[in-house]
Amino acid sequence: MSETTILLDHGSGGLASQQLIGELFLKYLDSPILRGLEDSAVIDNQPGKLAFTTDSYVVDPIFFPGGDIGKLAVHGTINDLAMRGARPLCLSLGLILEEGLPLADLERIIISISEAANDCGVPIVTGDTKVVPRGKADKIFINTSGIGIVPENVCLSSKQAATGDAVILSGTMGDHGITIMTRRAGISLQGDLQSDTMALHRLVAGLLDQFPGRIHVLRDPTRGGVATSLNEIAASSGRSIVLDEGLLPVRPEVRAACEILGLEALYLANEGKCLAVVDQGSAADIIAALHRMPEGRDAAIIGTVVDGTAGRVLINTPIGGSRVVTPLHGEPLPRIC
Amino acid sequence: MSETTILLDHGSGGLASQQLIGELFLKYLDSPILRGLEDSAVIDNQPGKLAFTTDSYVVDPIFFPGGDIGKLAVHGTINDLAMRGARPLCLSLGLILEEGLPLADLERIIISISEAANDCGVPIVTGDTKVVPRGKADKIFINTSGIGIVPENVCLSSKQAATGDAVILSGTMGDHGITIMTRRAGISLQGDLQSDTMALHRLVAGLLDQFPGRIHVLRDPTRGGVATSLNEIAASSGRSIVLDEGLLPVRPEVRAACEILGLEALYLANEGKCLAVVDQGSAADIIAALHRMPEGRDAAIIGTVVDGTAGRVLINTPIGGSRVVTPLHGEPLPRIC
Repeated sequence: MSETTILLDHGSGGLASQQLIGELFLKYLDSPILRGLEDSAVIDNQPGKLAFTTDSYVVDPIFFPGGDIGKLAVHGTINDLAMRGARPLCLSLGLILEEGLPLADLERIIISISEAANDCGVPIVTGDTKVVPRGKADKIFINTSGIGIVPENVCLSSKQAATGDAVILSGTMGDHGITIMTRRAGISLQGDLQSDTMALHRLVAGLLDQFPGRIHVLRDPTRGGVATSLNEIAASSGRSIVLDEGLLPVRPEVRAACEILGLEALYLANEGKCLAVVDQGSAADIIAALHRMPEGRDAAIIGTVVDGTAGRVLINTPIGGSRVVTPLHGEPLPRIC
Repeated sequence: MSETTILLDHGSGGLASQQLIGELFLKYLDSPILRGLEDSAVIDNQPGKLAFTTDSYVVDPIFFPGGDIGKLAVHGTINDLAMRGARPLCLSLGLILEEGLPLADLERIIISISEAANDCGVPIVTGDTKVVPRGKADKIFINTSGIGIVPENVCLSSKQAATGDAVILSGTMGDHGITIMTRRAGISLQGDLQSDTMALHRLVAGLLDQFPGRIHVLRDPTRGGVATSLNEIAASSGRSIVLDEGLLPVRPEVRAACEILGLEALYLANEGKCLAVVDQGSAADIIAALHRMPEGRDAAIIGTVVDGTAGRVLINTPIGGSRVVTPLHGEPLPRIC
């Protein structure tokens, strides 16, 4: 294309749209299904229930240490499918572009989406692009929706957290949130802060395969962080959750940044971690299995499901006290994902 | 809720998000699946291939004669599924809201989505809401993605347009496009211009049921209009299409508005119409069947598929001439859908 930025015409549905699709999207995302450019993709079905999810990504900045908005959009939707035990089957890609977006930035994002989708083995099968005038959006917003297949014997839900279950976090807390926050604030900190954006479908498949019936709940603690996701699990299951503050995995550089900025890692967004509520008797084996997986090497048991006030999350502090962990209240920084 | 406008906090994933979901979204869109508020919806599968589609809606204005952005988002995605012969199964709803959007406007849109989804018998099963700061989006952008089931014996594709096939348009051209354009331009014209936004899945199911194997291609001519969609069909099938200008159905008030504004109805967006490329021998019966359906009462045969230059669309004019109809080139007005 001769242009160097996105024009309104690229969203017209006419010749310029076709050129953008042909010269940029199909160049990197090509597949027999996508190439058909039909009104919808038609794909082979598989036995099992269907999992379906959608997420829009509006993160600012669009490029950040450890990833970018494109990679985040692929991983995030795959993770939402995986949290129900689904094998991700395919993704859709909906782009809202601001007039004037440099085509080089769009190409970099499309390459990143292509690489992430290929790494995950989950193709983009259908898409849509809209362009809005300068000042009516901020560079690029991405929606990814996804379909997955839930094997017949798998049934994961927040309702299933049972008294006595162990609560596992698959890795360190707050990496994504603190990375975006320090970038946006223009703060330069010592240490290597970077987003944890990562797909978890292989970790989930491994756990479900090795521990059938032992995994009761999976949630990925994105916006609102571990604190908010645990509150949701406690509310859905009508139970309490007790955490041990000393067991929470946090990287030293994230802990340091939180102290400087006055933030709690429990409330920061994660983009490559999951909470697993599991059978207490299998918890040690599950942790050992997680430690053998690249996505779970920092996994830790962080708490227990108990009878008690429905929906309450408590944390025991190292000095012997205990306090209630509420869901996130107030927005520390918008556009975290 | 005590607020009257959308706050950044409504997109935090925390308490304010939960309040918005509980007091607004679930109030109107409630279903057992949505109420679970899990990371993805799990739904029963059905025999057949899967159709999957996505569309983002950025139309300006968000309310217009005949509909609004919410209704458009439900109908548009259902229609994209229907164009492959799929029975729509469920929809996702991804909202990007601008800080400051009046909650009354959001409620009106959610009610409209609820009514449209109920009328169509296609539930919203999963959703996501993001909020961006004032000036970083324009009021509301909506993504709807959808899953449908394609019966085993159905195979519709633009590639399947065959020499001799009749080209049918299911109703009048340009109603949506001209309505948005005149609204945006602040032009008040005589006559009752309104969007044709409408779901076509029942029309499609009726045709496939009554005329098995006779319907070769279905496309809904949205952005870029009938002209662009026919060019795509001609290109995909490697054939030419010849239209008869005198047969093109256009409402008199749309024709008048086009003349005043110097526009061609062939290039205007439609949101409740489909093009059908069908077996010539069945065309008259198909038209008769369409005329009995509320969605197809203005249906007309508008042309024929012929051998000739692959991808070319020609139109014969009433005075005996003929000209090439190119795809849309240039953007007459952005944000038409």
